[in-house]
Amino acid sequence: MLQNEKTIRSEKIFQGKIINLRLDTVQLSDEKEYSREIIEHSGGAAIIPITEDNKIIMVRQFRKPVEDFLLEVPAGKLDKGEDPLVCAVRELKEETGYEAKDVKFLFSFYSSPGFSNEMLYLYVAKDLISGEVNPDEGEYIEIESYSIDELLNMIYNGEIKDGKTITAIMAVKDFLF
Amino acid sequence: MLQNEKTIRSEKIFQGKIINLRLDTVQLSDEKEYSREIIEHSGGAAIIPITEDNKIIMVRQFRKPVEDFLLEVPAGKLDKGEDPLVCAVRELKEETGYEAKDVKFLFSFYSSPGFSNEMLYLYVAKDLISGEVNPDEGEYIEIESYSIDELLNMIYNGEIKDGKTITAIMAVKDFLF
Repeated sequence: MLQNEKTIRSEKIFQGKIINLRLDTVQLSDEKEYSREIIEHSGGAAIIPITEDNKIIMVRQFRKPVEDFLLEVPAGKLDKGEDPLVCAVRELKEETGYEAKDVKFLFSFYSSPGFSNEMLYLYVAKDLISGEVNPDEGEYIEIESYSIDELLNMIYNGEIKDGKTITAIMAVKDFLF
Repeated sequence: MLQNEKTIRSEKIFQGKIINLRLDTVQLSDEKEYSREIIEHSGGAAIIPITEDNKIIMVRQFRKPVEDFLLEVPAGKLDKGEDPLVCAVRELKEETGYEAKDVKFLFSFYSSPGFSNEMLYLYVAKDLISGEVNPDEGEYIEIESYSIDELLNMIYNGEIKDGKTITAIMAVKDFLF
């Protein structure tokens, strides 16, 4: 029998710039209390820029939590109250220099709902216009572009390791190719 | 120019049952110091059970961080040092009662590498044998099964909201159908 989890107590452990951590104590129908460790995140937007010759523009950057240079679709964190579409277009411009005349929403999803409320909104961008990049301070990014078949191979051989990027590539394959 | 981020200081903020939180201070080539908020997670395994008539066995459960009942592929957290394949098979049995004669690894990915090191290992299970479910204490689960086309529709209409599950469905579509 499914049941929701009633919050008995909630304790703020940490308030950061990217994430907050709180500990909720919940009670279930067995009358027992359980602890839930919860990361609060404002969410993010990711965008798949597709060129006229069907290459996908990707960004490579160092990710401290995994100590690796990951190849990803352009993406970033929502500012407080920001429309995900506005965020996606802003991150595309900042990270790759491109603007797009045609941006479509695909779908949204939780990155890791077992411990976090981060929701990611996924967009596809076409009719691209190139321009100057403008990364955030402390953000070092390289731009690479690949065909959809190259990217699918890079998922199965382990070269692409970022979940939202794998979702994005497969969605584009399913949706557009 | 890409560069890695050298750790100057590292502070443990929280040690939980599912996650730890630490704050790293890093120095980049601009000589400035930046703070990185990092969630440590032991990783997880997810498994896509496919029946003889090509239905996919899914589980629905309440996820406290997002206050919603999510439809997901069977999955769970790695015990310390556990082989992801062993974890995938264990979670399949605990959550759905099924055992599988044929289990294949697809690929692995980070769920949210901007703030977490959680890595998920994805498997496909075929030749299923039904049996008794055995959920963890405090875990309430319902089992549902769908065709691959039904699941793809549920991604685009927003009924499926879990990132690893979307990745799993699209990978199975790409790989097997």
